[in-house]
Amino acid sequence: MAVDRLAVIGIGLIGGSFALAAKERRLVRHVVGVARSQHTRDAALECGAADEVTDDAATAVRGADLVYISAPVGATEPIMRAIAPHLSSDTLVTDAGSTKVSVMAHANALLAGHCVFIGGHPVAGSEQSGPSAATADLFIDRTYILTSAPDTPADRLDWLRKFIAGIGARVIICDADQHDQLVAATSHLPHLLAAALSGALADLAPRSGDLRLFSGTGLRDTTRVAAGPSDVWRDIFLDNRDNIRPPLEAFRARIDAFLQAMADADGDALCALLDEAREFREGLNDQ
Amino acid sequence: MAVDRLAVIGIGLIGGSFALAAKERRLVRHVVGVARSQHTRDAALECGAADEVTDDAATAVRGADLVYISAPVGATEPIMRAIAPHLSSDTLVTDAGSTKVSVMAHANALLAGHCVFIGGHPVAGSEQSGPSAATADLFIDRTYILTSAPDTPADRLDWLRKFIAGIGARVIICDADQHDQLVAATSHLPHLLAAALSGALADLAPRSGDLRLFSGTGLRDTTRVAAGPSDVWRDIFLDNRDNIRPPLEAFRARIDAFLQAMADADGDALCALLDEAREFREGLNDQ
Repeated sequence: MAVDRLAVIGIGLIGGSFALAAKERRLVRHVVGVARSQHTRDAALECGAADEVTDDAATAVRGADLVYISAPVGATEPIMRAIAPHLSSDTLVTDAGSTKVSVMAHANALLAGHCVFIGGHPVAGSEQSGPSAATADLFIDRTYILTSAPDTPADRLDWLRKFIAGIGARVIICDADQHDQLVAATSHLPHLLAAALSGALADLAPRSGDLRLFSGTGLRDTTRVAAGPSDVWRDIFLDNRDNIRPPLEAFRARIDAFLQAMADADGDALCALLDEAREFREGLNDQ
Repeated sequence: MAVDRLAVIGIGLIGGSFALAAKERRLVRHVVGVARSQHTRDAALECGAADEVTDDAATAVRGADLVYISAPVGATEPIMRAIAPHLSSDTLVTDAGSTKVSVMAHANALLAGHCVFIGGHPVAGSEQSGPSAATADLFIDRTYILTSAPDTPADRLDWLRKFIAGIGARVIICDADQHDQLVAATSHLPHLLAAALSGALADLAPRSGDLRLFSGTGLRDTTRVAAGPSDVWRDIFLDNRDNIRPPLEAFRARIDAFLQAMADADGDALCALLDEAREFREGLNDQ
């Protein structure tokens, strides 16, 4: 099961945590971390996520058994283009992008014949970023989705499934289309709403006094994800915009129902809307 | 400073925590808790929030130095009507309602001449409810807003300010109008969005597979408040609906800006929107 050489391209919070988790469980012997900034490379060495660092992905992947691409999804295509000629057909390449349809298409166009590619999406993270925020426990009991192509060798998929389970995650294997639709609803729309709410409060702040003084844990929780990295979320919103529409329409219909019930002073209708919301939310605690 | 008899009308999470906090700091000698259900009365005695319980608010307030009304805001008027004849002019009555304009108006109509009333709003709580979830630490470092009328005696306001500070809260004294506008933006709108999101996901669930399986901490945080008690939030939405409109419009304008940037594939515009959101959100951590 153990990997001799793991190359992590983009060794930040996710990539760094993946390396730390695999090292702690002795699933990997040597990690080479790739980052553009000297500061990130230094931090990756400092926290022990990487044994070796470089700014050159092509160098890093040479001789690697496992390559982990952990970068904003918009960077996936150029990274694949850069590493393709340096991969061996034995190498397994996976990624940690939050969308999968475009990633699978890029892999099919750029990596086929060079290596085996299996898409990945760890449903884990925090609003922090960088390898200094990385932790070996990040994936424990978290959902980790893998997406494969029809021609993915079953034994390699099974191997990666076991490797990911080995770092504590609950692995789900699904179709890239289905993945992108589901995460549009469970992750991308919630992020959009949190960012729009934070932005709206920033807009109001000058004329409504100090909103921050009046804020409690409810507002902090509701907007927490809006502190996430802008480049990562820019790419997600661009890549998955079509799938965000249907759940956004369902959300708008709910807002309209609330407004109608308020305009009608219909307490029973409001209670029904609130009860349905609470029932769904309480179900999340059982996961 | 210490109070001989505190009556808590509606001894749930907030009322129970207020009693526990005051008792722990020896700011109160005897607490009588009022609740309609036997189960809640038993729980209030069990957790030590109340020394004595009853289902009759009129009995409870007789001889009380301090009366704490902690109930859905829609119940404030009937409670005030019921207790008014049984109050002494020395009694200080306060409440924990999340809206203040209507509460101050009811107090002016029903309690003037019977006692001194000062409105209160602890910006604290959780999605849990009931006295068994109460804790003496609930108000520590939390904002606690007091609203007074022009004829409120300054010495009584000052006394209550010190009492609330004594249970660890950060007291803000402000005008009821300003209060209701600010909390519409920082609390009521975020709750509306969380409930609309939870409801929308419940709507989608049958046709999009198991959304819960794909959910992470981001969704749990964004929707956490939606697990709150429906009757409390029904009353807030009915009472403060006019003030929710302006921040909701600001939110919708932000959503439209995001959608436009996505439609234009304008990464810079998306980054600017995300950066503004992140900047506001990071400011909340400094509070």
